[in-house]
Amino acid sequence: MNTLKVKSYEHSYDIYIEKKLRFKAGDQLNKEYSQIAIVTDEHVSQLYLEDVKQSIDQKCKSFIIPSGEQSKSLTKYEEIQKYLLNNNFDRHSAIIALGGGVVGDLAGFVAATYMRGIDFIQVPTTLLAHDSSVGGKVGINLLDTKNILGSFYPPQAVIYDTEMLQSLNEQELRSGFAEMVKHGFIFNVDLLNELKGINTIDPSHPLFDQWLIKSLSVKKHFVEQDEHEGNIRRFLNFGHTLGHAIESTKSHVTHGECVMYGMLFAIYLSDCINDKDEKLFNEELVNWVKNLGFPLNLINISDISTVSDKMLNDKKNSNQFINFVLLNDLGEPFVSPFSIEKIEEHLKAFLDLKALKGV
Amino acid sequence: MNTLKVKSYEHSYDIYIEKKLRFKAGDQLNKEYSQIAIVTDEHVSQLYLEDVKQSIDQKCKSFIIPSGEQSKSLTKYEEIQKYLLNNNFDRHSAIIALGGGVVGDLAGFVAATYMRGIDFIQVPTTLLAHDSSVGGKVGINLLDTKNILGSFYPPQAVIYDTEMLQSLNEQELRSGFAEMVKHGFIFNVDLLNELKGINTIDPSHPLFDQWLIKSLSVKKHFVEQDEHEGNIRRFLNFGHTLGHAIESTKSHVTHGECVMYGMLFAIYLSDCINDKDEKLFNEELVNWVKNLGFPLNLINISDISTVSDKMLNDKKNSNQFINFVLLNDLGEPFVSPFSIEKIEEHLKAFLDLKALKGV
Ligand SMILES: NC(=O)c1ccc[n+]([C@@H]2O[C@H](COP(=O)([O-])OP(=O)(O)OC[C@H]3O[C@@H](n4cnc5c(N)ncnc54)[C@H](O)[C@@H]3O)[C@@H](O)[C@H]2O)c1
Ligand SMILES: NC(=O)c1ccc[n+]([C@@H]2O[C@H](COP(=O)([O-])OP(=O)(O)OC[C@H]3O[C@@H](n4cnc5c(N)ncnc54)[C@H](O)[C@@H]3O)[C@@H](O)[C@H]2O)c1
Ligand SMILES: [Zn+2]
Ligand SMILES: [Zn+2]
Repeated sequence: MNTLKVKSYEHSYDIYIEKKLRFKAGDQLNKEYSQIAIVTDEHVSQLYLEDVKQSIDQKCKSFIIPSGEQSKSLTKYEEIQKYLLNNNFDRHSAIIALGGGVVGDLAGFVAATYMRGIDFIQVPTTLLAHDSSVGGKVGINLLDTKNILGSFYPPQAVIYDTEMLQSLNEQELRSGFAEMVKHGFIFNVDLLNELKGINTIDPSHPLFDQWLIKSLSVKKHFVEQDEHEGNIRRFLNFGHTLGHAIESTKSHVTHGECVMYGMLFAIYLSDCINDKDEKLFNEELVNWVKNLGFPLNLINISDISTVSDKMLNDKKNSNQFINFVLLNDLGEPFVSPFSIEKIEEHLKAFLDLKALKGV
Repeated sequence: MNTLKVKSYEHSYDIYIEKKLRFKAGDQLNKEYSQIAIVTDEHVSQLYLEDVKQSIDQKCKSFIIPSGEQSKSLTKYEEIQKYLLNNNFDRHSAIIALGGGVVGDLAGFVAATYMRGIDFIQVPTTLLAHDSSVGGKVGINLLDTKNILGSFYPPQAVIYDTEMLQSLNEQELRSGFAEMVKHGFIFNVDLLNELKGINTIDPSHPLFDQWLIKSLSVKKHFVEQDEHEGNIRRFLNFGHTLGHAIESTKSHVTHGECVMYGMLFAIYLSDCINDKDEKLFNEELVNWVKNLGFPLNLINISDISTVSDKMLNDKKNSNQFINFVLLNDLGEPFVSPFSIEKIEEHLKAFLDLKALKGV
């Protein structure tokens, strides 16, 4: 089986990657628990809950939340905590998150804080969750602010059955694919080039699991070096500064679609700063992204002030400056602060680019 | 200044102990924060908030909660989190808990989970809080279950102005004093003997700060060895198994008063198990405790089944057994499981003791 070991502050944990793993998820638990609660969402439960349940020969309950970001709330958090308490879950119990990033973030925060922390196992079912299930960030939203309440709480294991990705729609696939591309851009140029060779995101592609493993390895690299994001873990925010700002103002676009757009802008901005002859931003790149179905008309001139306001209020930015992760070259990220005025200027020029307009 | 350094998983922190420290609390902060929120309660704010505020020459707001255990709720947690968010607290802000264990536990849990953790400084104002402010346990109650939601989140510093203890009433003094006595019983017999020499709890006694430092050193010892309570930190629960059970059924008695009663029972139980000639439980001990004003009639025969039910449902006990911390000898704790039937038998005999009845 494909396995990656991630070193973390408190304990190391394994990521298992294999098709059909859901049928033997139980074998990957290396403890006897007093009880297990599988937290999952309405869509995923219909597809995979029974498979996972049957693979576990321990005492096992399930808690199903509505699909979607609005479940990452204090209300749902409280509901699950009460459920655990009323069902006598003790210190030796565990929570399994079966689902995408929403389920993982919420269930992880519950596990992190129930009795000051019980065991937590990630069973990601989306492509995006290859990213969100590794690194220990868990949390919920409050007053429309994303992930404002949370902890660093690494899982005991990540059990990734990549066959489950085949039931995702194109938009959800794009969402996770953007993070793979990001990992290529900031660290693994070989991966980036391999990904650039495809023109449709197909999780049943014979090389797909290998690309995923490379992508996971990049995530592993950064979180092992800097688990609590004091330093280089910030590079993982490549594309996210603008991406998050757009995401918070639009519905019907996914996280990764916004991040892809944000990466294009960050790459464009890098060129402006680097002033090298060979540009990172070029038509070939834009066409590839366009071909994969990523929307390239996410914002227009009239959105600029809203979006730059959002960036300024992001919890990562202090004072009047916005920190952007840029590229010195492919695989060479760095962080650079910009004034709000400079960013608005660059955004305007970016929106004016022929390559983008020709959508 | 009296200083104890506590080693912790993530960082070490200092406990500063001195009279009048509140007037220079600001000097003990060793960082510039973007903003500081002082969380305190209605009583304490009237007595000491201004002193502390004036000692801090950084941007400083305050949030006042109602006094009492009912503030350790998810509702108050949410209120404070929204307050931080609405006032643009960022990653570089800090929370100061000015108050007793209620304020410390609640504010600490807020700090632990706001933006995945911001700096947290304890300024304990009760005698009990010499215990609760050290060791990193923070949390709130849910559905009448104490501390069920929480984290291990060590403070950046503990700033203990022991002059503030002089405004506590006798009952609150007893509450904290019981934990000092506990630290004597489980680890520092010299401290125990010194404490046995007094017949009134007076924080202005010339030796009081030295006793407190000894008591704090015991807490430090156990949490440094076993921060996350996998092992010997459990010895700190001496007196708490029965104590907690009584506390949850009675109002108008303090935590420490219940713990003192629980310790008497645990000492009595130790004698039953040890079967040595020299008994740890004796009239001299009971008289000392009685003299200090501790209530010795907290339960009677008709309460036994309620109390033993509570003990069984405590999160520290699994199956049908209840774990008790007992003493092999003074300063030598160990853990022993008892069946519910055995405990009820012993409780009955304990309640029948002449020494206790002569109240
Ligand atoms: N913790 C982290 O480090 C981290 C990193 C990135 C993103 N995130 C968070 O992740 C969340 C987004 O994650 P997501 O995109 O996985 O969202 P999601 O969990 O909402 O899943 C997306 C949709 O796909 C459905 N779905 C899930 N698995 C499926 C499957 N196998 N087949 C068919 N449908 C399936 C879900 O029901 C949902 O409707 C956001 O809240 C974001 O903040 C967290
Ligand atoms: N985290 C831990 O390790 C730990 C350990 C033990 C207890 N606790 C928790 O601590 C809490 C009890 O703490 P507590 O006894 O300090 O209770 P508390 O915080 O409620 O304070 C007791 C009372 O004294 C008042 N008060 C506080 N300081 C005062 C002062 N200087 N002068 C006059 N009045 C003052 C308060 O307003 C309150 O009415 C419980 O919730 C318990 O669970 C936590
Ligand atoms: Zn992302
Ligand atoms: Zn106690």
